[in-house]
Amino acid sequence: MSVTLPQIPAALDLIGTAVFALTGAVLASRLRQTFVTMAFFALITGVGGGSVRDLLIGAPVFWVRDPWVAPVCMAVALLAWFTPHKWWEGRLLDWADAAGLAAYAVLGTAKALAFGIAPVPAVLMGVITGCVGGVIRDVLAGRPSIIMRPEIYVTAAALAAGLCAAGAWLGLPREIAWSAAMLGGFSLRGYAIATGLALPGYQRAGG
Amino acid sequence: MSVTLPQIPAALDLIGTAVFALTGAVLASRLRQTFVTMAFFALITGVGGGSVRDLLIGAPVFWVRDPWVAPVCMAVALLAWFTPHKWWEGRLLDWADAAGLAAYAVLGTAKALAFGIAPVPAVLMGVITGCVGGVIRDVLAGRPSIIMRPEIYVTAAALAAGLCAAGAWLGLPREIAWSAAMLGGFSLRGYAIATGLALPGYQRAGG
Amino acid sequence: MSVTLPQIPAALDLIGTAVFALTGAVLASRLRQTFVTMAFFALITGVGGGSVRDLLIGAPVFWVRDPWVAPVCMAVALLAWFTPHKWWEGRLLDWADAAGLAAYAVLGTAKALAFGIAPVPAVLMGVITGCVGGVIRDVLAGRPSIIMRPEIYVTAAALAAGLCAAGAWLGLPREIAWSAAMLGGFSLRGYAIATGLALPGYQRAGG
Repeated sequence: MSVTLPQIPAALDLIGTAVFALTGAVLASRLRQTFVTMAFFALITGVGGGSVRDLLIGAPVFWVRDPWVAPVCMAVALLAWFTPHKWWEGRLLDWADAAGLAAYAVLGTAKALAFGIAPVPAVLMGVITGCVGGVIRDVLAGRPSIIMRPEIYVTAAALAAGLCAAGAWLGLPREIAWSAAMLGGFSLRGYAIATGLALPGYQRAGG
Repeated sequence: MSVTLPQIPAALDLIGTAVFALTGAVLASRLRQTFVTMAFFALITGVGGGSVRDLLIGAPVFWVRDPWVAPVCMAVALLAWFTPHKWWEGRLLDWADAAGLAAYAVLGTAKALAFGIAPVPAVLMGVITGCVGGVIRDVLAGRPSIIMRPEIYVTAAALAAGLCAAGAWLGLPREIAWSAAMLGGFSLRGYAIATGLALPGYQRAGG
Repeated sequence: MSVTLPQIPAALDLIGTAVFALTGAVLASRLRQTFVTMAFFALITGVGGGSVRDLLIGAPVFWVRDPWVAPVCMAVALLAWFTPHKWWEGRLLDWADAAGLAAYAVLGTAKALAFGIAPVPAVLMGVITGCVGGVIRDVLAGRPSIIMRPEIYVTAAALAAGLCAAGAWLGLPREIAWSAAMLGGFSLRGYAIATGLALPGYQRAGG
């Protein structure tokens, strides 16, 4: 339980948290919410997925033990409060979110593997790290969560997480495996953003 | 914290997970969701209740440390995807769910007692094990959860969990106590399925 | 991880749990729910916030390890079931809830600090302790959660938690710091109840 991940790039991690926190804050501003709600949405979207992952794998919850993550989320909320939300909506945020999604899915999978979790649950931990913050944000806002939408989102997280686990299983050097996995997930999500690609729904004959 | 439950029948546990996972996958197919959503619903319904229980009692989360549970949930999602959902809806699934509910309520209570939890919280852990996966599934799907419906569901889980705790308190042999508790919960739930039995709502005079 | 909080007033804690549990039970009665739903709402509202806090800071979950908390929640549900809910609605419950909110925010922050959590996350733990039970209650009931309403609620919890952390940082005696923090949070929430004070929503030009 005292496993450490010495080389997880702390700055990358903080940037990922900030991007996710921004998506939460921007949703709150679109809903004309108060600053307190905005801060809460920034926090829960930024750290929700990693918190669930850490609880499930038995790791200390990362942001509770870190003095910087929570202040960064609060700073993001302040930024969103004092700027027009049009600055942040649209394609730029979508692309930043795609990068955060791919990075988190890979880092979440790698952390689970480092804690001795078997490959299939480890991939699921990666997906949870990338997606669950947004799911909680959407449930609290009372809108259909990303889980329920056909766009390629969870699928891109699953691809990144799966590539990361495959790389570890093949014994590839971490730098290569992680980079390839992040690139794969980011590319798939980016392709979906650019083209509107979506998965087909269930429509079994007689279904 | 290193308590083990040597005799919890692992096969029974996997079957219960699979049945619950199927109820999640079938709901996703009814909502015409994609395969990824279906897999997510299968997982969360199958393992949600046990995960919350394990977190609350301080046990390692069962499916994260087990190489089989998550693959079984994924296999259930594949099965649901490639078959007409009419195969799975209706009475057969209701009865299988009733069996899973009773079994999980008993196993959850027994695990909590084995971790030294007092009887009342242990019974609540059994109820949580049986019901919370379905609650999370319903909240994510945006429909009223089983908690909010008058049908005898949570009540049947509470009966099974309470009988299990009573049997332990009376010092009955585990085989007998568990069997009686599962039978009691399953019978009550089955009676409700067969007759539409429901609890009365609050309607206090002046209320 | 084996930190103890010898002087947290256990009676105060139980009273706070009971007040929150009552708000959950009263909501269930207003929705004409069954007794089982009422008991579930009482439990989740009474212990939800403290449970999430304990999981996040790595403490044993308080009510699972305590033989009294869960029975108190069940007793509150019985009380609510056998009395007209008009007895409990309205101003009296609002004021009791305000007291519970302030007390929980302070106790939650103090517990987090005692576990070695840094000030900013510790304040967030206080807010979570005070508010998350109500958030889960509202999500399960399918109504907009307190997080989404402009009234001063989360803000009052944040004030109480912030004052508690500030007092600890200044080295004030705990009795003084806690009392001042609870009084501050309670006063702000009380002022909002009495006057309808609410925070402004986001309405940036061009937003």
